[in-house]
Amino acid sequence: MEKPKKDELLEKAKKPGTEALRLHPLYKGKIEIIPKCAIRSLKDFAIWYTPGVAEPCKEILQDPEKVFVHTNKGNTVAVITDGTRVLGLGDIGPLAALPVMEGKSILFKYLGGVDAFPLCLDTKDPDRFIEVVKLLAPSFGGINLEDIENPKCFYILDRLRQESPIPVWHDDQQGTALVTLAALINALKIVKKKLEDVRITLVGFGAANVCIAKMLLKAGADPKKMIIVDSKGIISKKRDDLKESHKEKIEFSKITNSEGRDGGIEEALVGQDVLIALSKPGPDVIKKEWVSKMAKDAIAFLCANPVPEMWPWEAKEAGARIVATGRSDFPNQVNNSLGFPAVFRGTLDVQARTITDEMCIAAAYELAKCAERKGIHEDYLIPTMEEWEVFPKVAVSVAKKAIEQKVARLSFSEKDLFKMAEEKIKRAREEVEILMSKGIIKVYEEEQK
Amino acid sequence: MEKPKKDELLEKAKKPGTEALRLHPLYKGKIEIIPKCAIRSLKDFAIWYTPGVAEPCKEILQDPEKVFVHTNKGNTVAVITDGTRVLGLGDIGPLAALPVMEGKSILFKYLGGVDAFPLCLDTKDPDRFIEVVKLLAPSFGGINLEDIENPKCFYILDRLRQESPIPVWHDDQQGTALVTLAALINALKIVKKKLEDVRITLVGFGAANVCIAKMLLKAGADPKKMIIVDSKGIISKKRDDLKESHKEKIEFSKITNSEGRDGGIEEALVGQDVLIALSKPGPDVIKKEWVSKMAKDAIAFLCANPVPEMWPWEAKEAGARIVATGRSDFPNQVNNSLGFPAVFRGTLDVQARTITDEMCIAAAYELAKCAERKGIHEDYLIPTMEEWEVFPKVAVSVAKKAIEQKVARLSFSEKDLFKMAEEKIKRAREEVEILMSKGIIKVYEEEQK
Repeated sequence: MEKPKKDELLEKAKKPGTEALRLHPLYKGKIEIIPKCAIRSLKDFAIWYTPGVAEPCKEILQDPEKVFVHTNKGNTVAVITDGTRVLGLGDIGPLAALPVMEGKSILFKYLGGVDAFPLCLDTKDPDRFIEVVKLLAPSFGGINLEDIENPKCFYILDRLRQESPIPVWHDDQQGTALVTLAALINALKIVKKKLEDVRITLVGFGAANVCIAKMLLKAGADPKKMIIVDSKGIISKKRDDLKESHKEKIEFSKITNSEGRDGGIEEALVGQDVLIALSKPGPDVIKKEWVSKMAKDAIAFLCANPVPEMWPWEAKEAGARIVATGRSDFPNQVNNSLGFPAVFRGTLDVQARTITDEMCIAAAYELAKCAERKGIHEDYLIPTMEEWEVFPKVAVSVAKKAIEQKVARLSFSEKDLFKMAEEKIKRAREEVEILMSKGIIKVYEEEQK
Repeated sequence: MEKPKKDELLEKAKKPGTEALRLHPLYKGKIEIIPKCAIRSLKDFAIWYTPGVAEPCKEILQDPEKVFVHTNKGNTVAVITDGTRVLGLGDIGPLAALPVMEGKSILFKYLGGVDAFPLCLDTKDPDRFIEVVKLLAPSFGGINLEDIENPKCFYILDRLRQESPIPVWHDDQQGTALVTLAALINALKIVKKKLEDVRITLVGFGAANVCIAKMLLKAGADPKKMIIVDSKGIISKKRDDLKESHKEKIEFSKITNSEGRDGGIEEALVGQDVLIALSKPGPDVIKKEWVSKMAKDAIAFLCANPVPEMWPWEAKEAGARIVATGRSDFPNQVNNSLGFPAVFRGTLDVQARTITDEMCIAAAYELAKCAERKGIHEDYLIPTMEEWEVFPKVAVSVAKKAIEQKVARLSFSEKDLFKMAEEKIKRAREEVEILMSKGIIKVYEEEQK
C-alpha cells in the first residue's frame, strides 16, 4: 500500500462533512413516506380508507397473521436509538441523532428494499426504552437498535430478544460482528490458517467486540487462544475490577487467555495470528512495534472510526499481511452496510420470529463466498456496497437458516427466496432513479469553483 | 332528493369493502418509506451516512432548532392509536387497526403533502400511552391521535396538549368539529340565520360532539340555546348520573338547556334550528315526526357512519331544508379528510408549537369560504376532496392564525405560505402519478365478469 500524504488524507476526510452540511438543508430530511398502492382517483380512498378498509381490519381481528397480508408491517423496521452513543460523537441525544437514523433508513431501503422508520426516543432509562419498543411492536416486522451506549445496549438487546414478539437486532453488536466475521473467514483462507487454530486478540471490548467474541466462538474459534484487551489491559481471572463492568467481561475472563498473560495491547499481540481492534480512534492507539511481534502472516483489523487505531500502511510495514479498516478510502472496508439490509430482507421475507446468531453466521459465510467467487486477495476480502447482487444472495442464506432452525413463519424455495429479495431491492433502486430523472428528487451538484 | 332503493344502497355500500379485500393483499400495505434525497452513486452514502452525517448532527447538538433544517422532522406526523375505537368497529386492538392508520397516512400525504407514519400501540392504559407519545417526540413534527375510545381520548388529548413539545391533535375530536363547523357556517348562510341566534341540538356526546360543542361556543354560539342529548336523554342539571361519565357532561349540563327541558331526542328537537347528530348508526335512531317539530328552515346533520341516524330523504320529507351526512354517496358529506391534511400542512409550514382551537376555527371559515366562492346551495355546503386547490388555501389560513397567535416558530407572507403548501401537495400527487405510470405502483383493475 502506498503511503498517502497526511494533508491529502485529512482534506479528503473532510469532504463528506462539508457536502453533508451543504446538502442536508436543501432536502430537509432524507426520507419520505408515500403511497405504495394505486390511487386512480379520490374514489379509491373509499377502498383504502373508510368504509372499505373495515373489511381487512375484520379479517385481522379474526386471524392476526393476516396483518402481514393486508399491511406493510411485514416489510417495516424501526430504527430506534436513545442517542447515547452516536457514531464517534458519543451521547448527543435523540434530536441530534436523527440525521444518522434517517441515513440508516435510506440504506435499509436502497440496499435491502426494507421500509425503515427512524425513532429517536427521549429517554436514557433502559427499562422505559424497552417498554416503548415492546408497545410499538404491532406496527413493525422488526426492530433495529442503533447507537445505544454500552453496557446498557447488552441489557436492552437481551431483554428485547426475549420479550418482543418481533425480531430485535442491535446493529452495533450483531451487524458489526457479522461483517467482521465474513472478512476474517476470507483473510484466513488467504493465509491458509483455520479459525479453530488461530490465536485471536481483541482490542476494545465494547458492543461490537463483545458480540464478535461470542460469534467467533459459535463459529468455531478456540477461546483458550483468544486474548481480550480493554482500556485497563488484558482481561484475565486476576483482574478484580471486572465486577464493576458488564457481565460479559467476567464471563470471558474465565474462558479466554489460558496462558494468563498480563499487560496491555503490546503483550496481548505477541505471537498472535489475528488482531481485531474496535477500540478508540487513532492513529497511534496501536504501535508498529507491537504489531511486529505478531505471528507470520498476521491479520490486523483496525476498525475504529473515523481514524483507525493505526494507519493501515504502518500495520503493513510492521509485517501484517492483511489489513482491514472501517473506512471506504482504504482497501477492505469492514462496513455494517453489507450486513443489516440483507439480514432484514431475509428475516422479513420468511417472517422469522427472531434473528439467531446462526442466521448471522450463515450471512457471514455467504458474504465471504460472494467475494471468493470473484477472487479474493490481500486487498479484496469482502464485497463492497457497489456489488448489489450480493444483497439478495445473503438475504437468501439468512432466510434458509431461519427456515432450517424453524424460526420462520413462511417457507419458500431458494429460487423463490432469491426472486422475492431481488425484486424488492431492484424496485427500491428504480424508484429513486425514476424520481431523480423526473426531477421530483432534485440533484444539487456542487458549484465549480 | 330522490329516494334510492334500499337494495341498491346496500349493494353499493358493500362495493368498497369487496374491493378492499381484493386489493389490500396485492399491495401488502399502503405506504412505503423512500429516500427523498438524491443518490447519485453509493459514494453519496458517505454524505448521507457516516462519516459526513456527523456534521449535521453536531449542528443540531449546538442548536436544537436546526433539526428542522437537517431532517424530515418538520414534515413528519405520527398517526397513533391504541385501537380501542376504530371506525364503527369498536375495540379491535392495535394490530387490526393498522390498515386504517396506513389509510390515514396516505390521505395525509396525498391531500396534505405530510409524511405520516402509523403507530399502533399495544396498550390500553392511557398513562402508558401518553408516556410513549411523549418519548417519541424527537422524531416527529406533530401527533395525530386516532380512533381512541371516549372518555380516555379527552384525558389523553388534554394531557398531551400540555405536556408534549410538539402539536397534538385528535382527529375524531378537532378534525370532525372543524369540518362540521364549516358546513354549519354555510348552511346558516343559506337559511339566513346567525350562529349567535340559532338553537342547536346535539345528539350523541362522544369525542366528536363534545369537541363540536366546545368549538361552537368559541365560534359564537349561545350555550343557553343549546340542548345536548346523550344515550340517557337530555342533559340537564337534574341528571344525577352524570358524575359517572366524563367531566365534559357535567360542565355542559351547567351552561346548556336553559329552559330545563326533560326527555329524549324528540323533546330536544322541538323548535330547534339545528340538529347535529353523531350518535350511533341508523336508520331510525331519529324519527321523521321528531324532525318535523323543528323550526322552519331546519338544518339536520346526520353523521353516524356507515348509516346515518335517519335517511337523508326522510329528514327532507320531515321538513328539514338542509341535510348533511358522513357518506360520500349523498350530498354534503361532512368528511374529516377535508380538515386534517390542511391543518397539519399549515401547522408544520410555520413550525407551530400547538394547534389552537382558533386555528381550527380559522380553517373552518376558510373551508366555508372556498365553497361559497363556487356558489353554495342546499346540496353544496362544503368542498369535496376532489377540489384539491382548497387544501393549500386552508393550510394558509391555519398558518396565518398560528403566526397571529404567536405559536408559530416561523413567519412567512401569505403568498409564500400558499406557494410552500401548494408545492408540497403537488409533489405528493405527482410522485404517485409518476410511479403508477412507470409501473412501480401497479394497477390491478377489476376483472370483467
